[in-house]
Amino acid sequence: MELSAREIATYLNGEVEGNPDVTVSGFARIEQATQDTLCFLANPKYEEYLYKTGAGIAIVNKTFKLRQPVPYTVVWVDDAYRGIATLLDIYATLSAVQRSGREYPSRVSWRAKVGKKCYIGAFSYISRGAKIGNNVKIFPRVYIGRNVTVGDSCILYPGVTIYSGCHVGSGCILHAGAVVGSDGFGFAPDENKRYKKIPQIGNVVLEDDVEVGANTCIDRATMGSTIIRRGVKLDNLVHIAHNVEVGQNTVMAALTGIAGSSKIGEGCMFGGQSGVIGHLSIGNNVSLTARAGVSSNIKDGETHMGFPNMPISAYRRSYVVFKNLPDLQKKVSQLEQEIGSLKSKP
Amino acid sequence: MELSAREIATYLNGEVEGNPDVTVSGFARIEQATQDTLCFLANPKYEEYLYKTGAGIAIVNKTFKLRQPVPYTVVWVDDAYRGIATLLDIYATLSAVQRSGREYPSRVSWRAKVGKKCYIGAFSYISRGAKIGNNVKIFPRVYIGRNVTVGDSCILYPGVTIYSGCHVGSGCILHAGAVVGSDGFGFAPDENKRYKKIPQIGNVVLEDDVEVGANTCIDRATMGSTIIRRGVKLDNLVHIAHNVEVGQNTVMAALTGIAGSSKIGEGCMFGGQSGVIGHLSIGNNVSLTARAGVSSNIKDGETHMGFPNMPISAYRRSYVVFKNLPDLQKKVSQLEQEIGSLKSKP
Amino acid sequence: MELSAREIATYLNGEVEGNPDVTVSGFARIEQATQDTLCFLANPKYEEYLYKTGAGIAIVNKTFKLRQPVPYTVVWVDDAYRGIATLLDIYATLSAVQRSGREYPSRVSWRAKVGKKCYIGAFSYISRGAKIGNNVKIFPRVYIGRNVTVGDSCILYPGVTIYSGCHVGSGCILHAGAVVGSDGFGFAPDENKRYKKIPQIGNVVLEDDVEVGANTCIDRATMGSTIIRRGVKLDNLVHIAHNVEVGQNTVMAALTGIAGSSKIGEGCMFGGQSGVIGHLSIGNNVSLTARAGVSSNIKDGETHMGFPNMPISAYRRSYVVFKNLPDLQKKVSQLEQEIGSLKSKP
Repeated sequence: MELSAREIATYLNGEVEGNPDVTVSGFARIEQATQDTLCFLANPKYEEYLYKTGAGIAIVNKTFKLRQPVPYTVVWVDDAYRGIATLLDIYATLSAVQRSGREYPSRVSWRAKVGKKCYIGAFSYISRGAKIGNNVKIFPRVYIGRNVTVGDSCILYPGVTIYSGCHVGSGCILHAGAVVGSDGFGFAPDENKRYKKIPQIGNVVLEDDVEVGANTCIDRATMGSTIIRRGVKLDNLVHIAHNVEVGQNTVMAALTGIAGSSKIGEGCMFGGQSGVIGHLSIGNNVSLTARAGVSSNIKDGETHMGFPNMPISAYRRSYVVFKNLPDLQKKVSQLEQEIGSLKSKP
Repeated sequence: MELSAREIATYLNGEVEGNPDVTVSGFARIEQATQDTLCFLANPKYEEYLYKTGAGIAIVNKTFKLRQPVPYTVVWVDDAYRGIATLLDIYATLSAVQRSGREYPSRVSWRAKVGKKCYIGAFSYISRGAKIGNNVKIFPRVYIGRNVTVGDSCILYPGVTIYSGCHVGSGCILHAGAVVGSDGFGFAPDENKRYKKIPQIGNVVLEDDVEVGANTCIDRATMGSTIIRRGVKLDNLVHIAHNVEVGQNTVMAALTGIAGSSKIGEGCMFGGQSGVIGHLSIGNNVSLTARAGVSSNIKDGETHMGFPNMPISAYRRSYVVFKNLPDLQKKVSQLEQEIGSLKSKP
Repeated sequence: MELSAREIATYLNGEVEGNPDVTVSGFARIEQATQDTLCFLANPKYEEYLYKTGAGIAIVNKTFKLRQPVPYTVVWVDDAYRGIATLLDIYATLSAVQRSGREYPSRVSWRAKVGKKCYIGAFSYISRGAKIGNNVKIFPRVYIGRNVTVGDSCILYPGVTIYSGCHVGSGCILHAGAVVGSDGFGFAPDENKRYKKIPQIGNVVLEDDVEVGANTCIDRATMGSTIIRRGVKLDNLVHIAHNVEVGQNTVMAALTGIAGSSKIGEGCMFGGQSGVIGHLSIGNNVSLTARAGVSSNIKDGETHMGFPNMPISAYRRSYVVFKNLPDLQKKVSQLEQEIGSLKSKP
C-alpha cells in the first residue's frame, strides 16, 4: 500500500505542509521511522523526536507549534491519535487476509448452522445446535459447545473455547485461549468440611462489539447469565466470575479480576491487576488505578486506588505521609521528650 | 424437567406453605424469577426481593420471618443455600448430556489404556503409556502426555494439557486451558549472568475430587512431586509453582499465585489475587483476604491481610489510621508549634 | 540411568568421601531421598535433613562442615546447586524422548518451510510463509500463523499459539497455552464514548534462548515490535503488553504484568504478581519484590517494593511504622492531652 501526503490529508481532513506528493508505504514509531514510513505525534512527551525522525511524513496536531523547521512533509490534523487510528484501520482493512471456506479436518455438527462467507479452520469443532452468523472467522483449534450462538463478523482466534449455551454478539473478537462459559467457582461445604460442587447451570452472554483478550476467562452464571455489555473491552488474563455484569463500553486492563455477582457500570476504566470483590455495585464512569482492590461500592464518576479502595486523592495524600512515616515517628518521640522535660520544669 | 412444590419439599425435607401442586421448570435469581421458575433466599441482604419476585416457588430458611404475605408458594427448609445446591445437582444430573464413545479424528496411542464408558472428543491426543479410568469425559482438543494416569469419572474440558508423567485422581474436573505439569521456573545463572535451565524432572499429582479452573497452571516439581491433595478447588488463572503442596479441601480464588516449595495446609481459603512467596509453611484453616501477600509462615486458623501479611484485625486497625495519616501529620505539626511556644514561655 | 559416586565426582570436579562405587538411579529432595537416589544440600536451612536422609549419595558444598558422621557417600563440590543442575541436565538429555517426524492429522502449508529432524505433532497447524528451523519440537495442537519464523532447537508445547508475522529465535521454549502476538490493547473513544479498535499491525520478536511460561501472553506491537531479548525467562500467566521491550537475561515470576511501551533493562528480576505501568523506563539489574507496582522510572541496580514503588529499605522502614500506627496515633493523642494540661498550667 502506498499513500501520498495529499491522500492522507484528504482522509483525515488535514492540511499539508511540504511536498504533497511524497508517498509512504508503512507506519513506524516516531523514533524508528524511515523515509518510506509515516509517523505521528500526539503525546508532547515525545516532541524531541519530531526534530530527529527520519520519517517521510508526520501527522501532527494543529495545536502544536514546531520550534524548528523539519525536512519532511507534515500533515496537520485536529487529532493525530485518532488520525493514525483511522489510517491504521484503512491499512488493516486493505491488507487483511480474506479467509473463507472450511479447512479439513474440522468438525461441524450437521445440527449446527453456519452462515455465509465464514472461515472454519482445521481442528475446529462446532457442536450440535450451535448457530454461527455470517462473515465469522473461526481460526484453527476453536471449540464451540452445544447451542452456542455467535453473531455476524466475529473473529475467534486459535484455541478459543466457548462452553455450551453461551451467546456471543456480532462484531466480537476473542483472542487466543480465551474461555467463555467455564463453571463459576461455587461450592458448599458439607459436614466434613468437604466442598460439594454447586452446579453452574447459567450461561455467559457477550453483547455486540466485545473484545476478549488472550487467555481471559469468563465464567458462566450459577443461574441466569454472566453479562458483558456492548462494546466492553477486556485485556489478556482477565477473570470475570459467575453472575457478574459489566456495563457498556467499560475497559479492563490485564490481570484484573471481578468476583462473583458484582455489577460494574458503563464507561468504566480499570487499571491492570485491579480487582473487585463479590456482590458489589460499581457506578458508571468509575476509574480504578492499576492494582486497586475494591471492597466497597463506588459511586458514578469516582476514581479509586489502594486496597481497601479509597478515592485516589485521599489515597495519595495518605501515601505521601506513609513514605515519611519513620520521620513522623521520630518527630513524635522528640515531642514526647520535650514534653517530658517541660513537665519536669519547675 | 418439571418439579412441584411437594416434590421439592420431599427432596429437601421441607414444609410447603401455599399450593403444593404448583410446578416450575427452571431456576432463577430472585430478582429475575418468573412464574415457572424457582428462586431461593439465603442472604438476608436480598430480602426486599422476596416481596417483589415473580417466582412460582421460593425456597426460604425456616428461621426467616415473612413481614408480609407473598403470592407464591414457599418451601421452608433448614438451609436454603444447601437446598438449592441439592436441587441444582438433581437438575444437572438429569439434564447432563450423556457423552461416550470416541470421535474422529482423535489420536490414542495403542500403548495407552482407556477404561469403559469414556468419551474422547475429536482432536484429542492420548500418548503412549497413559492410563485413563472409567467414565472419563475428554472433550475435544485435550492433550494427555506419556505415562499420565487419569482416574475414574474425571472431566477434562477443551484445551486441557497434561504433561508427561503426571497423575490425576478420580472425580477431578479440569476446566478449559488448564495446564498440569509445565516446567517449574528454575534457572541457575552462569558466570556471564545467563540463566541455565535446571531440568524439571518431577511431576504433578492431583488427588481425588480436585477442581482446576480455566487457564490455571500447575508446574511439575524439580524433583519429586507438586501435590494437590484431595478436594482442593482452584479457581481460574491460578499459578501453583514447582514442589508446592496444597492440603485437603483448600480453596483458592482466581489469580492467586503460590511460589515454589511452599506448603499450604488443609481447609484454607485464599481470596482472589492473593499470593504466597516460596519456601513457606501455611497452617490449616488459614484464610487470606483478597490480595493478601504472604511472606512469612502462618499458624493454624489465622486470617491474614496485606503485604507483607499481617493478622487481619491488626491490618485493619493500621489501615484506619493510614486513611487519616494527613490529619495525624497535621496534628503532630500543631503539637510541635504548641510545644515551641510553651518552651519559649518564660 | 545409573551413576556411581565416582562418576558424579568426575562430572562435577568434586571429591568423594565414602564408597565411590555406590550407584544411584534417580534424584530426590533431601527429605524424601531413598537408597538408590541422589540428593543435595545447598541451602543451610535444610541442614537437619543431612543427618536424617536415606539417600545413597549426597552432593554438598565444600565449605560446609558435617557435625556428625553420615552413613552415605558424600561428594564434596564447589557449588552443590550448580552441580545438581549439571547432573539433572545430563539426566534429562539422556532420558529425553527423541521425537521426530510428522504425526497425522496435522496441517503444514506447502508454502511453509520446515527444517530437518523436526517433530510435528498431530492437530498442529503451520500456516503459509512460516519458516521452522532444524530440530524443532512442535507438540500436538500448536498454531503457527502466516510468515512466522521459529529458530533451531525450539520446543513448542501443546496449545501454543503464535500469531502471524512474529519471530521466535533459536533455543526458545514455549509452554502450553502460551500466546505470542495477540493484539495489543489499543482503543480510541469516539464521540459517543464507544471504543474503536486501533489496528495492531506490528509483531513480536523473541530473541534466542527465551523461555515463556504456560498461558503467558505477549501482545504484538501497534507498530514496530514488542521485543523480548536473548535469555529472558517468563514464568506462567505473565502479561507483556504491546511495544514493551524486555532486556537480556531478565526474569519475571508468575502473574507479572508489564503495560504498554515500557522498557525493561537487562538482568532484572521481577517477583510474582509485580507490575509496571506504561511508558516507563526500568534500568538494568533492577529487582522488584513480589507484588511491587511500578509507577515511576527506576535506575540501574535498585530494588523496589510497594505500590507506588519505593526503594525496598524505605518501604520496609515505613511499613514497620505502619504496623504500629494505632500505637503512634494513641501516643499523639496522649501528647495532645499532656500539652493541653501544660498549657493550662498557670
